Amino acid sequence: MTLKFGVIGTGAIGREHIKRITDKLAGGKIVAVTDVNLDSAKQAVEQYSLDATIYEDDQALCQDENVDAVLVTSWGPAHEQNVLNAIEAGKYVFCEKPLATTAEGAMRIVQAEMKHGKKLVQVGFMRRYDPGYVQLKNAIDANEIGEPLMVRCVHRNPEVPETYGTEMAVVDTLVHEIDVLHWLINDDYKSVQVLYPKKTSRAHAGLKDPQIIILETKSGIIINAEVFVNCHYGYDIQCEVIGEDGVAYLPEPASLVTRKSAQLSQSIMTDWKVRFIDAYDVELQDFMDSIKQIGEPNGPTAWDGYIAAVTTDACVKAQNSGQKEDVALEEKPAFYDNKAAVN
Amino acid sequence: MTLKFGVIGTGAIGREHIKRITDKLAGGKIVAVTDVNLDSAKQAVEQYSLDATIYEDDQALCQDENVDAVLVTSWGPAHEQNVLNAIEAGKYVFCEKPLATTAEGAMRIVQAEMKHGKKLVQVGFMRRYDPGYVQLKNAIDANEIGEPLMVRCVHRNPEVPETYGTEMAVVDTLVHEIDVLHWLINDDYKSVQVLYPKKTSRAHAGLKDPQIIILETKSGIIINAEVFVNCHYGYDIQCEVIGEDGVAYLPEPASLVTRKSAQLSQSIMTDWKVRFIDAYDVELQDFMDSIKQIGEPNGPTAWDGYIAAVTTDACVKAQNSGQKEDVALEEKPAFYDNKAAVN
Amino acid sequence: MTLKFGVIGTGAIGREHIKRITDKLAGGKIVAVTDVNLDSAKQAVEQYSLDATIYEDDQALCQDENVDAVLVTSWGPAHEQNVLNAIEAGKYVFCEKPLATTAEGAMRIVQAEMKHGKKLVQVGFMRRYDPGYVQLKNAIDANEIGEPLMVRCVHRNPEVPETYGTEMAVVDTLVHEIDVLHWLINDDYKSVQVLYPKKTSRAHAGLKDPQIIILETKSGIIINAEVFVNCHYGYDIQCEVIGEDGVAYLPEPASLVTRKSAQLSQSIMTDWKVRFIDAYDVELQDFMDSIKQIGEPNGPTAWDGYIAAVTTDACVKAQNSGQKEDVALEEKPAFYDNKAAVN
Amino acid sequence: MTLKFGVIGTGAIGREHIKRITDKLAGGKIVAVTDVNLDSAKQAVEQYSLDATIYEDDQALCQDENVDAVLVTSWGPAHEQNVLNAIEAGKYVFCEKPLATTAEGAMRIVQAEMKHGKKLVQVGFMRRYDPGYVQLKNAIDANEIGEPLMVRCVHRNPEVPETYGTEMAVVDTLVHEIDVLHWLINDDYKSVQVLYPKKTSRAHAGLKDPQIIILETKSGIIINAEVFVNCHYGYDIQCEVIGEDGVAYLPEPASLVTRKSAQLSQSIMTDWKVRFIDAYDVELQDFMDSIKQIGEPNGPTAWDGYIAAVTTDACVKAQNSGQKEDVALEEKPAFYDNKAAVN
Ligand SMILES: NC(=O)c1ccc[n+]([C@@H]2O[C@H](COP(=O)([O-])OP(=O)(O)OC[C@H]3O[C@@H](n4cnc5c(N)ncnc54)[C@H](O)[C@@H]3O)[C@@H](O)[C@H]2O)c1
Ligand SMILES: NC(=O)c1ccc[n+]([C@@H]2O[C@H](COP(=O)([O-])OP(=O)(O)OC[C@H]3O[C@@H](n4cnc5c(N)ncnc54)[C@H](O)[C@@H]3O)[C@@H](O)[C@H]2O)c1
Ligand SMILES: NC(=O)c1ccc[n+]([C@@H]2O[C@H](COP(=O)([O-])OP(=O)(O)OC[C@H]3O[C@@H](n4cnc5c(N)ncnc54)[C@H](O)[C@@H]3O)[C@@H](O)[C@H]2O)c1
Ligand SMILES: NC(=O)c1ccc[n+]([C@@H]2O[C@H](COP(=O)([O-])OP(=O)(O)OC[C@H]3O[C@@H](n4cnc5c(N)ncnc54)[C@H](O)[C@@H]3O)[C@@H](O)[C@H]2O)c1
Repeated sequence: MTLKFGVIGTGAIGREHIKRITDKLAGGKIVAVTDVNLDSAKQAVEQYSLDATIYEDDQALCQDENVDAVLVTSWGPAHEQNVLNAIEAGKYVFCEKPLATTAEGAMRIVQAEMKHGKKLVQVGFMRRYDPGYVQLKNAIDANEIGEPLMVRCVHRNPEVPETYGTEMAVVDTLVHEIDVLHWLINDDYKSVQVLYPKKTSRAHAGLKDPQIIILETKSGIIINAEVFVNCHYGYDIQCEVIGEDGVAYLPEPASLVTRKSAQLSQSIMTDWKVRFIDAYDVELQDFMDSIKQIGEPNGPTAWDGYIAAVTTDACVKAQNSGQKEDVALEEKPAFYDNKAAVN
Repeated sequence: MTLKFGVIGTGAIGREHIKRITDKLAGGKIVAVTDVNLDSAKQAVEQYSLDATIYEDDQALCQDENVDAVLVTSWGPAHEQNVLNAIEAGKYVFCEKPLATTAEGAMRIVQAEMKHGKKLVQVGFMRRYDPGYVQLKNAIDANEIGEPLMVRCVHRNPEVPETYGTEMAVVDTLVHEIDVLHWLINDDYKSVQVLYPKKTSRAHAGLKDPQIIILETKSGIIINAEVFVNCHYGYDIQCEVIGEDGVAYLPEPASLVTRKSAQLSQSIMTDWKVRFIDAYDVELQDFMDSIKQIGEPNGPTAWDGYIAAVTTDACVKAQNSGQKEDVALEEKPAFYDNKAAVN
Repeated sequence: MTLKFGVIGTGAIGREHIKRITDKLAGGKIVAVTDVNLDSAKQAVEQYSLDATIYEDDQALCQDENVDAVLVTSWGPAHEQNVLNAIEAGKYVFCEKPLATTAEGAMRIVQAEMKHGKKLVQVGFMRRYDPGYVQLKNAIDANEIGEPLMVRCVHRNPEVPETYGTEMAVVDTLVHEIDVLHWLINDDYKSVQVLYPKKTSRAHAGLKDPQIIILETKSGIIINAEVFVNCHYGYDIQCEVIGEDGVAYLPEPASLVTRKSAQLSQSIMTDWKVRFIDAYDVELQDFMDSIKQIGEPNGPTAWDGYIAAVTTDACVKAQNSGQKEDVALEEKPAFYDNKAAVN
Repeated sequence: MTLKFGVIGTGAIGREHIKRITDKLAGGKIVAVTDVNLDSAKQAVEQYSLDATIYEDDQALCQDENVDAVLVTSWGPAHEQNVLNAIEAGKYVFCEKPLATTAEGAMRIVQAEMKHGKKLVQVGFMRRYDPGYVQLKNAIDANEIGEPLMVRCVHRNPEVPETYGTEMAVVDTLVHEIDVLHWLINDDYKSVQVLYPKKTSRAHAGLKDPQIIILETKSGIIINAEVFVNCHYGYDIQCEVIGEDGVAYLPEPASLVTRKSAQLSQSIMTDWKVRFIDAYDVELQDFMDSIKQIGEPNGPTAWDGYIAAVTTDACVKAQNSGQKEDVALEEKPAFYDNKAAVN
């Protein structure tokens, strides 16, 4: 059985996912594409020699009977409507983050999905599929370090373009931690506070960098998250969970070790695209396999997309107020409780 | 374009490869299977819901016009004839190691392939596709550690069954190092000597364990290879290359780091099947992609299979004689020189 | 030349220092001892076969013409008076931490010393003599990681007795970080905030554990300090400084690495006494050598003792208020600026 | 009680030891010195402000009643006679390696000492006092890795002067491993073989570099020792012991870890003098303390010096013959069995 995809948005990551499904993974096929820039859609079809219908808009694509699942890789602000259209058509949806740019938008998707009555949506938080995070999650769930009490994580980029502003540190960068951490520690966020250390001279005028975001969960776990996007030395993602019995660390990516020039060293990546490249494969393969095996996606849900949206909002508020701000999440609907048996 | 496979031998690894091609990789399909045990072939077809013809023998399977490539995963002693039949039929072949159980047998395949006039055969030495070895190879080729002078490698298994005898340390275990090392250092073996350290009390009566195999290459590089198959603590593959300017190490597999019980530790695998599991995927994907893109496989060749066979023979001779033995390789035919452009 | 010591307080660390000076280091000699418990003083003299006068009180000991330097190892509350008596007598003083239990007390010593006109006092903050901290300091001062922006440090003990209360996390535990960090980053503290994560079930009723202390310096560096005194797994001191160009870490103590039972591991200490044992030697040797070579001690000064006292007070206030509290340091007198040439 | 030393040879290491005893360690004093170059002896007295008699020759110095122990730090060829003179005078001797330059010479010292009836001699193999080797030894003796089966060690220097010849790789460099390894694994050497890998282009014409020395012990342990004295990248001492249950490694020296320029790295020493600098202190302190506490030195004995001499000879023979050579040790006299209780 082949899962037939319609793709909305044939930009950078859209094409990467098209290539993945076409040339690397098993069981999927691109049968339809659209992009507000129709030329881009046509180029993509040509580039990957796709046997796919080109649609003028997302609604038409969603309605195509041949389409089993919709891949939303348009710009963030378009996601909400794209996803609602897909749900409307009763199609499975894999939506790149963010699910929606506002908490209300995300909630509208949650409600549309619940109304539809079956889980259709997976959000593209690929870190949950990274083998390192999976090991960390397994260790925590197996109680290997006891009850988690604190988390420390680091998100560092070598540099960012001029267009990258202070809020993006939360909205575009920290958002991956926001999703992966509550999943890791099985808890919900309660409040957030943002601190600004001395600014690096490498950050442009409008950007506060680094930032320290302190999240507290409902059970009292304190998360200390550093975002430092002009760290200069590399792309570096760290995460450690401190429990009652011990500490567990996200493993460093395996990389060549050398003894050279009076240094015993191991290389650090500089390109963020490489860091989770395998996770994108596993994520999409799991999306396809879960639909085939259990009839619904098994990854980050629309509810997780809602959590990310609400938390991101609170973080931005805390960035601006300098105060501790509430993360005001609604009660989780039972609909999102019964985790399917896979994974 | 889909590459259509006929599979000879539906045992353990045969089925893993069938599953890989069917459920995980892109661009391949199983269209024919055979096994001396026909029931096994039938079970495999059922287990993976294959749309495949079941053949009574390998020759008939090779002749099937629908078959583009033959996957040889029968027992070692059957490989030579399986591969010769596939070449005879002009089909691509992916043959699990060993290519043949004798140097003469491997040479017969080399000659059949050369007579056919085009490269058809890839041998299943998957380590060349392990990202760690690839990084090590790249570092050496980029002259990051200068001219290689010595190599040290370690192949440790936690335990082996009673049926595992002294020669298997070379024929079944070291054979992977034999292939990957000459590729790593771009050199050919010249001689070999085997030393037997104090025997572990965990080895059964008929097995000398550990063993130290010292290989010397034509350019004078000395390789110190330890095989220790009752090491008890885990499955552990190490490789370090000592060059004029520095040392490069095969990276440890990324694994969870913890601080617990007064230990800062990182887990070591115990199951060999897990260690190179991704490499099998990459290897088969590369086999398929190369055939499509450059018209021939691009991995370990029949000549590499011949090198492995000759070197294995010399190692066994050295195991028995206690002396330094020659590795008597024929001159490499130009046919195997022109490396295709991919990879 | 031998530096002749009078010791005030012959308890645990008093005797360790006596043993050090007598049996391990060069150039010192114990010539006088006192303790409020005179029996203890007598026992110490006997235990280490000292040729030393036993005094009934600290004042008498300080006045002994034979005494060049006074070693203050009495209980904390006695330190201030002990040190003032020594300064009064014009003697060098090595005073175990704390210099005084109040900021005012420490300031009285500072003023007495300044009135005396020459540096006499060294405070027993031995971490500055740990080779790991020295390497870290050198790297920072050599600008190897650029301007420091953030610091993260961890102080973990496996367990504490029932008598250990919440304030002791600052007064007895964090105090070592308080001293060593401002020295490391050449900065002064400005404010402090304390967070209480979820409490470990191993902490007794009266103790908040772990605690996160967030210090901000005058230049804007943010220090995130974790104190976790029931961490169970070991005694673990970590420190990392994040700069504009890179990150530098306090090295892990060198310890045996093993591959065993499917773990690649390195042992972590459990006994805090062992962690800085060499630093105590270096500290006292440096005290003696500096006095001989440059006529004054060259380690942590009375001013550093004052900084520790003021900062500790602010931390305790922040523990109780839950608010950000000022660290209200007086202007540093020029007297403490001219660092002697040694070290 | 102060141990009074007479020093024979006031060259580089002679002066370092004089400084150590005078300025750093407790319980020793230099009271006499000599050197064939009398000016050197005079300079040393002046440099360290010693209150010491200058002797014209070693015999006179040994006879000085004020001298308790003789420190032999003359050139290697002079050691044998220096030590025999000290034994003749009934004095304790700390002799820098080598004890003697021939096996016969070392045996003459052994016999002189046995005739004297009491252990007097300690040889300056300081590695036994390195905390890393001590940890490794303790782990082996505590059976943490089970019965040792193989050892791998590495001795690398960044470069050597033109005067360093092929034999020096054994006589001056490997000699430290020769001593420390048999102590580590509680075994005696039986045979040795030397292999020459491809030569580094950095070695001058007369020097074979690197070299691999393969030692076999009486119980069958195989030691693979690499000496590579133009390794360029640093001074690097490695040692790992592979046992039935696991592997134990000599710890890397603790050194600063940084994340910088896309590298996670740790510095490697380049100066051999720094690597074991603390071990020299501990070694001499132990020599003094043992004499005071148990009436005899407790470190490497004259018999260990003899083992080093015999093994070095066999290695040189193997360097030249290319064959496996016997290490022909005499039976160990009971005199050297009863290990004193300290340490
Ligand atoms: N998970 C991750 O790590 C990750 C990585 C990269 C990007 N993303 C997300 O993927 C999304 C796309 O990013 P990108 O880098 O590919 O951007 P891009 O600008 O390269 O591509 C976006 C494409 O969407 C098209 N588009 C915009 N609005 C549309 C609409 N309403 N209907 C149809 N097409 C529309 C644009 O024409 C463009 O071709 C973003 O939301 C981004 O946050 C996620
Ligand atoms: N690359 C690796 O790391 C790796 C790993 C495992 C196995 N292998 C190799 O793969 C081969 C198969 O190993 P396995 O573990 O799957 O063995 P297996 O015994 O499980 O399977 C072998 C199958 O081949 C069939 N067979 C034997 N002779 C045949 C013939 N002449 N024609 C058709 N079928 C025949 C058998 O009936 C059996 O079903 C071996 O050569 C082994 O060395 C390689
Ligand atoms: N730098 C470090 O890491 C470190 C480690 C341990 C202790 N310390 C400090 O050293 C001091 C002593 O600690 P300890 O563990 O040895 O305590 P202890 O209780 O074992 O010894 C203190 C001794 O001082 C004596 N004493 C008390 N008041 C005195 C006075 N007024 N005059 C003379 N003697 C008096 C007591 O009788 C006792 O013998 C404390 O201030 C402690 O904080 C520092
Ligand atoms: N344990 C170690 O790691 C280590 C390190 C360095 C040196 N050493 C050993 O220490 C010894 C000295 O080495 P060095 O580097 O100090 O050499 P050096 O040349 O600097 O000093 C040797 C001194 O001995 C004097 N001397 C020579 N013969 C003498 C004699 N018969 N009587 C009195 N004095 C005599 C010389 O004049 C010279 O001053 C050597 O045997 C060397 O192998 C050991």
